[in-house]
Amino acid sequence: MNQLKNQSGEFELIARYFQNWPIFSNGQAQTIVPNGDDALVIQSHSPLAISVDTIVENVHFLTSSPAHGVGYRALASAFSDLCAMGATPSFFTLALTFNKNEKWLKAFSEGLKQAAKDFKIDLLGGDTTHCKPAKNNISVITIQVHGQCEKPILRSTAKPGDLICVTGNLGDAAAAVALLEKANPNAEEKALLHAFYYPKPPIHLIEALAEKANSAIDVSDGLLADLMHICQKSQLKAKLQTSQIPLSQSIQKIHEPTQALKYALTGGDDYQVCFTTDQSNLEWIKQNNITIIGEMITGDADIINENEQSFSQIYSVLGYEHF
Amino acid sequence: MNQLKNQSGEFELIARYFQNWPIFSNGQAQTIVPNGDDALVIQSHSPLAISVDTIVENVHFLTSSPAHGVGYRALASAFSDLCAMGATPSFFTLALTFNKNEKWLKAFSEGLKQAAKDFKIDLLGGDTTHCKPAKNNISVITIQVHGQCEKPILRSTAKPGDLICVTGNLGDAAAAVALLEKANPNAEEKALLHAFYYPKPPIHLIEALAEKANSAIDVSDGLLADLMHICQKSQLKAKLQTSQIPLSQSIQKIHEPTQALKYALTGGDDYQVCFTTDQSNLEWIKQNNITIIGEMITGDADIINENEQSFSQIYSVLGYEHF
Repeated sequence: MNQLKNQSGEFELIARYFQNWPIFSNGQAQTIVPNGDDALVIQSHSPLAISVDTIVENVHFLTSSPAHGVGYRALASAFSDLCAMGATPSFFTLALTFNKNEKWLKAFSEGLKQAAKDFKIDLLGGDTTHCKPAKNNISVITIQVHGQCEKPILRSTAKPGDLICVTGNLGDAAAAVALLEKANPNAEEKALLHAFYYPKPPIHLIEALAEKANSAIDVSDGLLADLMHICQKSQLKAKLQTSQIPLSQSIQKIHEPTQALKYALTGGDDYQVCFTTDQSNLEWIKQNNITIIGEMITGDADIINENEQSFSQIYSVLGYEHF
Repeated sequence: MNQLKNQSGEFELIARYFQNWPIFSNGQAQTIVPNGDDALVIQSHSPLAISVDTIVENVHFLTSSPAHGVGYRALASAFSDLCAMGATPSFFTLALTFNKNEKWLKAFSEGLKQAAKDFKIDLLGGDTTHCKPAKNNISVITIQVHGQCEKPILRSTAKPGDLICVTGNLGDAAAAVALLEKANPNAEEKALLHAFYYPKPPIHLIEALAEKANSAIDVSDGLLADLMHICQKSQLKAKLQTSQIPLSQSIQKIHEPTQALKYALTGGDDYQVCFTTDQSNLEWIKQNNITIIGEMITGDADIINENEQSFSQIYSVLGYEHF
């Protein structure tokens, strides 16, 4: 690559908005050749966790979405995978295909930079391409995150008796989807929209998760769909206490309990972490604002509620369907 | 990520076409957690060269382009950066946003796999997203390549007196752009189209380049534009012998010498390597079908011809303008 090059002669714009950012990471990966040659060269003495996520206009965000939030969310959605692996954030690359103007690019870059700061991760390279507005109308953003990962947390290593835990609240982002184009949202609706554009994956818990979690997955497609991967990979059943699912005040004010729960269980885009851990970690859980939502038990891969009913009999689709 | 996941329920298609490929690399990077968890985890004991390239429908290829060639070219265009860095290919990730059918996906994956085999590099993860044909009409393909790179070749380390060399022929791909939609191309035109869809970056020279090249860049934007980066970074002038620029028989049969030379000097998409090396390496150059096209000399960053005329006075644009 010419890192962050743009073949339409927009080197200058790229330099203005995507270069010379402060260092946000703790610098575990050593940069041997920086941005500006055919390739970036880095040296990592620890194993590297690597995850790629793409967000597409009209699929994961709307043309009318605020560019600042699109930039923030693009990084958050990739970053949550590092949290779920117990990987310390190091650096990311950005492949940006856009059809917007400089105003959009500026706001996008500022949102992205805010996320990079919040998640302590450095933009080291990438590629930008400009698709022609006359021929199409979408921007596509791919981010690859890289983190130091001495002790990966897998989906396949949950144990019977493990507590099932989740960070943060669930459902807000999914509930926000219906509000994305709403004029004059009220305060509660604004809170949901904020959760959609500014997800907060649990960066503060990464080290503890690497030490204490027996299994983990990020909640991106919906809690049930994601937890089902842990069940399948670990060959266990999950029993949830639906009354314990963490819901924000905003979603509870706007929606009836049944609908709020449906968003939390089957909605996507939360970018929190669902993990399982030994019961002996109860004190740590309580101290860290983590919610216990159930228990792993022996049995065929499935998720059941407190009445022993399988969620596949309650909801037709366990995961998120993009708009 | 869910590596190579697709949120539209197309896990099965992805598994069918992008998983369980043979191992093509020499395996220098150790896979600690493979495809199928929140992130891939790899351990590389050498420094990693990393390069990202995106190709966009209607910018870098056409809707009517053969999917097999699009897949091959997508990887080749990223891979040439590893050659230019002297990096041994290890693995790549694929972020594929597509709006096509299964037939397209199958042919694309087969072209990509052929390139992976030719370039000895393994597909380890990625993300696929489906943009909605009703709302837009483009596919976007981002590939990030990773290679072991003990001794990076920089753009900034050319020396006065260095021979300027280039691998392969130049200009065919640029000449092919006008032919992309031509019905019934003749044999020479087919050869140019083949050069466009099936670039052959010099994988066989990577080790020797790492040892012998003083500077290098891949020829992606056009020889003059790319060589100018070496001049600027190394603070030297390049003097070319235009009669020595390597041209294929096909381009010479189709085009007048002046036009063929213009394609070779200012066209893009060759994905060969332009490098500089000590004059003492003359014998190696001759033995390896590499062409000497000029010499680095002291002076302000510029590229001149055998008549001491600056190419900026000959061509209005030194590099490729995408269609």
